[in-house]
Amino acid sequence: MNVVLLQPSEVDADGGATVQGRRAEHVAKVLGKAPGDSLTVGLLGGQLGTATVVSSDKRTLTLQACHFNRAPAPKRPITVVLALPRPPVFRRLLQHLTALGIEHLVLLHTKRVEKSYWMSPALEPEAVDTQIQLGLEQAVDTVAPSIERARGFKAFVEDRLPSLAESKQLLLAHPGPFGPCPTDVAEPTVLLIGPEGGFIPYEVDRLLEAGAQGVSLGPRILRVETAALALLGRLGG
Amino acid sequence: MNVVLLQPSEVDADGGATVQGRRAEHVAKVLGKAPGDSLTVGLLGGQLGTATVVSSDKRTLTLQACHFNRAPAPKRPITVVLALPRPPVFRRLLQHLTALGIEHLVLLHTKRVEKSYWMSPALEPEAVDTQIQLGLEQAVDTVAPSIERARGFKAFVEDRLPSLAESKQLLLAHPGPFGPCPTDVAEPTVLLIGPEGGFIPYEVDRLLEAGAQGVSLGPRILRVETAALALLGRLGG
Repeated sequence: MNVVLLQPSEVDADGGATVQGRRAEHVAKVLGKAPGDSLTVGLLGGQLGTATVVSSDKRTLTLQACHFNRAPAPKRPITVVLALPRPPVFRRLLQHLTALGIEHLVLLHTKRVEKSYWMSPALEPEAVDTQIQLGLEQAVDTVAPSIERARGFKAFVEDRLPSLAESKQLLLAHPGPFGPCPTDVAEPTVLLIGPEGGFIPYEVDRLLEAGAQGVSLGPRILRVETAALALLGRLGG
Repeated sequence: MNVVLLQPSEVDADGGATVQGRRAEHVAKVLGKAPGDSLTVGLLGGQLGTATVVSSDKRTLTLQACHFNRAPAPKRPITVVLALPRPPVFRRLLQHLTALGIEHLVLLHTKRVEKSYWMSPALEPEAVDTQIQLGLEQAVDTVAPSIERARGFKAFVEDRLPSLAESKQLLLAHPGPFGPCPTDVAEPTVLLIGPEGGFIPYEVDRLLEAGAQGVSLGPRILRVETAALALLGRLGG
């Protein structure tokens, strides 16, 4: 945790704040903050700043002089369209992608996504918020990526992808006879990543027809988690 | 599992092989292979090829006509020097780095590595081999990266790093006033990656003095796992 994130409602008019639960415990036990110590704080959706610790134990953290005065690192103009992975991978990837600063995440159903994944507790709003918060706390960010679900592949390609990809570079990550993923891309980009086992040929064809440029990470077949992070690294920040 | 890896001792002179345990169970239950089906096989440390399934159940897989005739994707000329992460992250990263085809991995002790990590069962040879095998099976590779342990930072920098980095590009991944990590690097490269919390300033200074070029992934503070894969993606294949 490199920043303590606060809800606007948690900060009173005098710059005081009281925090309970996981954040309080982390500050007391891991960061070992004592009264008078300074702490990096962030207003969820807003600015970063500092606060002074009034008291800290594993149940309750009390802060004063919360002062927000600088913007977090800007979001990267990247939308990731991710075939919904199995829940433990989804949880980790959501943290990774949040920390990497992507702007928007679309969770997509494809032929090789197990339908049961959509019923996972990992997709419940509170569970999603937790992973996003962990990613933001890691990367010293306050702005969550937006998340969208697309449970029909055909409807996504026909009805949603055109507006999603408008004026953006559209990349399809897929093993195959494609060139390497471009590096340090400044223009807004939509990156499509398939499930374990890949997009099926029908899906690849539809996405290429929709204007996607195929990109490959070479001859090695990679797990979704490995590939997603390697691709985001290439796109740069 | 995209290839069934065989020990040379498992293959008899007529090209037959009998496999038990995890590999047999995976072929029967996940790949659903039946007698007569063809299967991609690889000789550990050697070539890839094909075999024909004689019988397959969750206990035993019997193969015939094992035929090895093509080299796996070449290793990438990359050595990763990784401050030993906590065991679950180490297990996952070892799989990721193996799948990405790095040549050599040095596990390094630094100030912010907890000493207890060196006693973890995850570092026992059998546990290490399992993760490497999973990475090779994923990436359709047969050649394991070599692994080395450096349990003293000072001794590593003074006695080992000069020969390790000889005629190679030496990169130090560290948040700070450094340029971005280069992309699609063809020359042999040694990449130094610190622990959660980073290298301490003394360590950074020693590594820069030893000739390392600092590289950064931008203003966001990333977990080791996120950063390592993003960096490997940038270095390319």
